[in-house]
Amino acid sequence: MLEFGGEALVLTHDMLVEGVHFLPGQDPADVAWKLVATNISDLAAKGAEPVGVLLGYTLGHDDQRFLEGLKAALDHYRVPLLGGDTVGGGGPQALGLTAIGRATVRPVPSRSGAKPGDALWITGTIGAAMIGLEALRSGTGDSLAYRRPQARLVEGLALAPQVTAMMDVSDGLLLDASRMAKASGITFTIDSALVPIATPEARRAEAMRWGDDYELLFTLPAGAEPAVPATMIGEAIARRESTIMLDGTPISPSEHLGFEHH
Amino acid sequence: MLEFGGEALVLTHDMLVEGVHFLPGQDPADVAWKLVATNISDLAAKGAEPVGVLLGYTLGHDDQRFLEGLKAALDHYRVPLLGGDTVGGGGPQALGLTAIGRATVRPVPSRSGAKPGDALWITGTIGAAMIGLEALRSGTGDSLAYRRPQARLVEGLALAPQVTAMMDVSDGLLLDASRMAKASGITFTIDSALVPIATPEARRAEAMRWGDDYELLFTLPAGAEPAVPATMIGEAIARRESTIMLDGTPISPSEHLGFEHH
Repeated sequence: MLEFGGEALVLTHDMLVEGVHFLPGQDPADVAWKLVATNISDLAAKGAEPVGVLLGYTLGHDDQRFLEGLKAALDHYRVPLLGGDTVGGGGPQALGLTAIGRATVRPVPSRSGAKPGDALWITGTIGAAMIGLEALRSGTGDSLAYRRPQARLVEGLALAPQVTAMMDVSDGLLLDASRMAKASGITFTIDSALVPIATPEARRAEAMRWGDDYELLFTLPAGAEPAVPATMIGEAIARRESTIMLDGTPISPSEHLGFEHH
Repeated sequence: MLEFGGEALVLTHDMLVEGVHFLPGQDPADVAWKLVATNISDLAAKGAEPVGVLLGYTLGHDDQRFLEGLKAALDHYRVPLLGGDTVGGGGPQALGLTAIGRATVRPVPSRSGAKPGDALWITGTIGAAMIGLEALRSGTGDSLAYRRPQARLVEGLALAPQVTAMMDVSDGLLLDASRMAKASGITFTIDSALVPIATPEARRAEAMRWGDDYELLFTLPAGAEPAVPATMIGEAIARRESTIMLDGTPISPSEHLGFEHH
């Protein structure tokens, strides 16, 4: 975040790497969409209106298709491409996008504001991207949620004035909730039965550890109702040894909670 | 360029790809330096003060060395790292940097403002990076100019109020001059004997077609003196068929003028 001319500029930079964040051979239009959506999702979580993006593009497999997807995504979020750089490559494709946003709420929502007693909420459902990736890999079923994730921009803007903390769930609900708890210096109790899932019931535990859904995870003071549809899944309590108590049981830090990209 | 809170934000995004913009095995600290310098150079050419950068980093060979070089370069230009993304890779390393600057002069200098009668000027000398790359490859001689290019930030800020057009010379003097001529709708006459070179005389023609020097190329009204040391190398005239007349001879568009990255 940057103070600029009396306003707060919110900047995000996310990258996608072939073989890490998207499948080799995946439709470049979908890759472009996802690149835009992940960055806009970061702005959404900060309640920032997008004002433009810069693209870092290594020439790849079907650059025309990429541009089509890029245009579709930028039109969808009504954000202009301001510039960037295009370079030759040769290895796995690496794509970077910088998104510039204008803060609509001060202080800008962050992951560090949750307080004991706050309720923990999530928009939408999780696990849809997991099912979508399986559909894409198998060639049957609906892969849209994985290929064309939706950034919760409208929801982020509506929630920003209300929340005590907010972030997008890109790497897995439990992992990202754990990060929010750590940043806020609290522990979250999460009731797994309350978590809204897009998967069969048997895959609930998995869905909570899967990323790429880009829902918004946020906290509100106890009793407050969110401005947009969302589900309450837990509560912030005073910090315990573990950052997450799942159904009353502390989660071990060594347990797999989601995607660790590094 | 973006209007923001009554100020003009200048944004640049440059990428470096291993094997394209730097040598495989090159010191990661030098690569980091160059990544910063190329972006700051873009700001310099627009007379913009740097306010911060965002880094897109694919994990590479010696990440600690990269961070050391990054810190050195950011300290050198007194610009903070605001954020970014770090991802796994596996192929040739692709690095992206977004630099955010605050315009100091309105309108912001561009490559499209040169007018017939304007004089064409360049800061410093060209060809130093070419000699530096040879030194690096051979392991003898001074490779600093290639490894740690200097962005002409102070000069760009001083020149911005004066110039009719300005850009940095990243891809070769003749190629970049040709781009400025095209954008401005004029032709440049260039006297090759006037071009300040850092190479032996025998390599003058080569030096004018070599990139990576990051000097500033700019135009001033006839008779005006630049605010910083620079050399007059030619003049803008009404548009001819060729964008460049070198020593009185039109340059063919098919001739090699510099680095075409795409």
